Amino acid sequence: MGCVQSFRKCCDRQKNTNVRIRLPTVCFIWQIAMIILFGIFIRYDFEASPYWLKYKKDNNITSDIENDYYFRYPSFQDVHVMIFVGFGFLMTFLKRYSFGAVGFNFLIAAFGLQWALLMQGWFHSLDYSDGTIKIGIENLINADFCVAGCLIAYGAVLGKVSPVQLMVLTLFGITLYAVEEYIILELIHARDAGGSMVIHTFGAYYGLAISWMLYRPNLDQSSRLQGSVYHSDVFAMIGTLFLWMFWPSFNSAISNHGDAQHRAAINTYLSLASTVVTSVAISSLFQKHGKLDMVHIQNSTLAGGVAVGTAAEFMLMPYGSLIVGFCCGVISTLGYIFLSPFMEKHLKIQDTCGIHNLHAMPGLIGGIVGAITAACATDSSYLIINMFDFNGDFHNMTPARQGGHQAAGMCVALCFGVVGGIIVGCILRLPIWGDPADDNCFDDEVYWEVRDKSLQP
Amino acid sequence: MGCVQSFRKCCDRQKNTNVRIRLPTVCFIWQIAMIILFGIFIRYDFEASPYWLKYKKDNNITSDIENDYYFRYPSFQDVHVMIFVGFGFLMTFLKRYSFGAVGFNFLIAAFGLQWALLMQGWFHSLDYSDGTIKIGIENLINADFCVAGCLIAYGAVLGKVSPVQLMVLTLFGITLYAVEEYIILELIHARDAGGSMVIHTFGAYYGLAISWMLYRPNLDQSSRLQGSVYHSDVFAMIGTLFLWMFWPSFNSAISNHGDAQHRAAINTYLSLASTVVTSVAISSLFQKHGKLDMVHIQNSTLAGGVAVGTAAEFMLMPYGSLIVGFCCGVISTLGYIFLSPFMEKHLKIQDTCGIHNLHAMPGLIGGIVGAITAACATDSSYLIINMFDFNGDFHNMTPARQGGHQAAGMCVALCFGVVGGIIVGCILRLPIWGDPADDNCFDDEVYWEVRDKSLQP
Amino acid sequence: MGCVQSFRKCCDRQKNTNVRIRLPTVCFIWQIAMIILFGIFIRYDFEASPYWLKYKKDNNITSDIENDYYFRYPSFQDVHVMIFVGFGFLMTFLKRYSFGAVGFNFLIAAFGLQWALLMQGWFHSLDYSDGTIKIGIENLINADFCVAGCLIAYGAVLGKVSPVQLMVLTLFGITLYAVEEYIILELIHARDAGGSMVIHTFGAYYGLAISWMLYRPNLDQSSRLQGSVYHSDVFAMIGTLFLWMFWPSFNSAISNHGDAQHRAAINTYLSLASTVVTSVAISSLFQKHGKLDMVHIQNSTLAGGVAVGTAAEFMLMPYGSLIVGFCCGVISTLGYIFLSPFMEKHLKIQDTCGIHNLHAMPGLIGGIVGAITAACATDSSYLIINMFDFNGDFHNMTPARQGGHQAAGMCVALCFGVVGGIIVGCILRLPIWGDPADDNCFDDEVYWEVRDKSLQP
Repeated sequence: MGCVQSFRKCCDRQKNTNVRIRLPTVCFIWQIAMIILFGIFIRYDFEASPYWLKYKKDNNITSDIENDYYFRYPSFQDVHVMIFVGFGFLMTFLKRYSFGAVGFNFLIAAFGLQWALLMQGWFHSLDYSDGTIKIGIENLINADFCVAGCLIAYGAVLGKVSPVQLMVLTLFGITLYAVEEYIILELIHARDAGGSMVIHTFGAYYGLAISWMLYRPNLDQSSRLQGSVYHSDVFAMIGTLFLWMFWPSFNSAISNHGDAQHRAAINTYLSLASTVVTSVAISSLFQKHGKLDMVHIQNSTLAGGVAVGTAAEFMLMPYGSLIVGFCCGVISTLGYIFLSPFMEKHLKIQDTCGIHNLHAMPGLIGGIVGAITAACATDSSYLIINMFDFNGDFHNMTPARQGGHQAAGMCVALCFGVVGGIIVGCILRLPIWGDPADDNCFDDEVYWEVRDKSLQP
Repeated sequence: MGCVQSFRKCCDRQKNTNVRIRLPTVCFIWQIAMIILFGIFIRYDFEASPYWLKYKKDNNITSDIENDYYFRYPSFQDVHVMIFVGFGFLMTFLKRYSFGAVGFNFLIAAFGLQWALLMQGWFHSLDYSDGTIKIGIENLINADFCVAGCLIAYGAVLGKVSPVQLMVLTLFGITLYAVEEYIILELIHARDAGGSMVIHTFGAYYGLAISWMLYRPNLDQSSRLQGSVYHSDVFAMIGTLFLWMFWPSFNSAISNHGDAQHRAAINTYLSLASTVVTSVAISSLFQKHGKLDMVHIQNSTLAGGVAVGTAAEFMLMPYGSLIVGFCCGVISTLGYIFLSPFMEKHLKIQDTCGIHNLHAMPGLIGGIVGAITAACATDSSYLIINMFDFNGDFHNMTPARQGGHQAAGMCVALCFGVVGGIIVGCILRLPIWGDPADDNCFDDEVYWEVRDKSLQP
Repeated sequence: MGCVQSFRKCCDRQKNTNVRIRLPTVCFIWQIAMIILFGIFIRYDFEASPYWLKYKKDNNITSDIENDYYFRYPSFQDVHVMIFVGFGFLMTFLKRYSFGAVGFNFLIAAFGLQWALLMQGWFHSLDYSDGTIKIGIENLINADFCVAGCLIAYGAVLGKVSPVQLMVLTLFGITLYAVEEYIILELIHARDAGGSMVIHTFGAYYGLAISWMLYRPNLDQSSRLQGSVYHSDVFAMIGTLFLWMFWPSFNSAISNHGDAQHRAAINTYLSLASTVVTSVAISSLFQKHGKLDMVHIQNSTLAGGVAVGTAAEFMLMPYGSLIVGFCCGVISTLGYIFLSPFMEKHLKIQDTCGIHNLHAMPGLIGGIVGAITAACATDSSYLIINMFDFNGDFHNMTPARQGGHQAAGMCVALCFGVVGGIIVGCILRLPIWGDPADDNCFDDEVYWEVRDKSLQP
């Protein structure tokens, strides 16, 4: 009987998960579409083209150092590292899914950022004079941000989906992101430089809703592969640390030049430091013998960065950052201990990386902190006009009202995540995407040539 | 009898190393204290607050790019990587202590940098007009530097202490650091941009003195765990390389704007290159069959960065940097081969990572090189007034005298390290901190949930 | 008989591969020569010396931020990471050659960059007034670039040469590089900011020619060690990702200030994104069951960065970058699947890392793309005078002619690589360098103390 079962399993695997036609087809069609659309729409902005010379002369700028490139390039590279090494390696903790973690993260990020440049360009940077999108360094950062939302969602479904599903998830995720970002930033006029709302809240609920739609009742058949081995936990720490270290760059990357970027970096630095200390405390407190759990160290220590995303550039004050980090370390770690098992058992949400604890809850906290900080802004401590741009259509804005707008923005992000995730989840349930069987999840063998047979579980 | 011994050992382990109450208590009390103290004392400096706008206008500054943030942020991020990834991964070489290496490094660095901001603030940045400390990007770099001293000390006691002990070590280490730094830089008026004296000499002797106080006569009972495995050595190379690559940023991070930062980066780059070549040479020369030893490649190759710390911003000249690196590569590697075994056997100093060879000796060399370079400074080659700030209280300074002050600074760092380490070592010998037994060192099982049982030694 | 064979093998190994005298001798002689030559020739340039203060005053520069250091230091550090972590870890994929990959990469890079500063200095930066070479941050970047050529060549012979051979390879490689770079950039007046020609084409053909000269007919005796294990593939992804992420810095590092750097970063970012998508597609398409191959993900995804090296700073246009990346992903992956086995079997070129697919072919494509882009430059879209410096001796240059010069440059790089490689290959065939026997390749045991005996194959 074991033999028959093996045979059926083998057939199933071949039938289901062979993406030899589907994956290349999607890749080629999509990449050719990108080339055509880029040919029609995308041009260099004036700071990345020879117009820069004319601009300098016209504006009496004496030095090339005032090109936006020099303000933002170091932050851009840090964000880039977070996207590719940070998110990629954070997910390598599973004993047999490191290729999928790093490799598919790589694929969908590279795939998504092209579409993000177009989608965000149409909404934010379209030059109506000639119908083109002008891109510069800030657009590259925003494309990376946009991709981050989808990579967060990947965390919830890690090990349970095919690369084709991931590309569909990314395609729709980027599209939804660009729309909700447009609504939140341009229509509602909220500010969200570090993306607590537009990136983390949206991305996390998008991923959780998809995971809910793709619920696998027999996932325990793959439980032999759902843990970590010693060195996979060390690999995951590479991801954790690069995310943690470069988060100040993430939250300050697209803030206003000068004091706003400076302040955003300081606030994020402090919040993250505080989170580490309380995550360790809770991890030890709730474990038998007081032993620390690597899951908490790898993930909860980052929650403080998520939660100061919105308010990092505001006058949150250093102690305020510490308080936010303090709370997030506690909440996120408790989430891993109590909430994740509850959600899996009772809400049928299987969240491989625990993104609810790392991105969803801290993202909501970040939205709330942002709303409160904005509402409490006073002229004496804070040149609100400079920060929130209270002029033009918004000249009758007040701090309190800005706080309301911030809160409204958070709700939009949440709704887009949940509703979008449910819709995309429905699409991903179609039996055409080559996803693995329940007893075959979390295994690189399914989509990768693994020559090292010594690791057979 | 084996059974009884096992039982006793088991009891001992449970009794001694359960930090379930102690660790969370320390973390929470400390983090709450930080929030309160930050609330009272810490504010943004003018470059990170809306005052920047006013400052720009008052000083006819036309561009935000002159905010100190843009001068120092790239260096700050590099230093940040050195602290968290560099020091953390450098210590992962032990076969079963990678969690402790990376994880505790992460904890004490995040814990320490908050206290460093306060301590250094009180000594260096206190604004007497309103009794607050104004922090900006330079303070963050200095906090990371301050933490580096304690992480160096951690290298000596790696695997032999509990996380609670590490937090005590860090708490006192930061405090001592801030005092000695104040004495050396402000009272003695030495310069030490890269911290050969204030960071490396102090940190190394602090750690060695603590390790001497915590001498474990039966540590050979843990010898089965004191080596490396193949992949743990590769992980350690991640730490080595990030330290090596970013050391030019470390030594130039808080130098004066312009040529001083530029020069510090060049000198460090050259010194480190030279060290690699001579470390390899000595490693091969003293090994049977000329085989290289990863311990030397991981550690001694960095000694050149330590030793140009003080003089990097001076007119050391490119060939001078090469000479310093040459000597340090030789001395540090010989230290690993001959001095470390000697110190363990005869001086009862158990130095897990060999910080005496990587930080203590090169740090002293760095202090001496700094004194000589300062004393030899001539007006023609070197605008000494600009570099050493020979005015105000120090207007009758000469290069020769400056050299003497540099040497005095080195002695202060050494004394603070040794005396401070002995005192803190006494405190850490109290039987309340949950440290492991002699036969239980270098093992992550003691403080971490290790689910991967395949690695049982 | 097995016993006799073992004995002979053992003797052979000892006789051949003991580098105890040779390696330290080369290191010391070389490092002392460097110190002497640096003492005679190398000085700080005016931006890294106190002359900066005078220069600022003379030129009415108000801010230190206009020091070249602040334009280039972030790019320099990214390039530095690519050289040491990127190239080093990319080669760790072999199951038992990770020490050699990271360690020898470290050694020859540190060794080579000193010689590169001198060689490039003599050709490009010699100050005829006092016979010295003035170095600043741009020279450090160029030294790293120069070293990159030799590290590419190392990829072809990985695991089959001794460290002494590598130092000889590097010594001649740097020398040849400096000469061909001088011919291509100064005499032929081609531009090649990202080094598609001078770095990648030269380096790859240099390495391939050496590997051809060192052909090992019985290399299959080491085939047990020529594969990867699971975690060595994950380590290699660290190298891949840091190369991929920081390639925009590589291609923009020495471009002109302002829009040229900005544009180079954007073009490289886009080209690389496109390459990832098509590499994955081809990898899946040509594999049974559509499974992805880590070799392609680790290597081919980088080909787009190589191929936009020359043209990145030109007006390649965003869609042009995507097209270049598209083609390179396809060609490079097909190269791994079809060309590498063909070259090994029929051309007797054993290319361990497949540098022909990652550097040689994309480098040639890059040269061609550069020539076409230059030839098509129009005044209206492109201020050709600024970019190509059409004045002085070259004032009668036209875009079409510049295109021809670019193509000529490519041929020079190719010739230098092939001819230089053959000559150096002859030298390396001398039986004095301590290289391993055919059945002993790809094994760290030969040149490293490996204490972890559990990995014996």
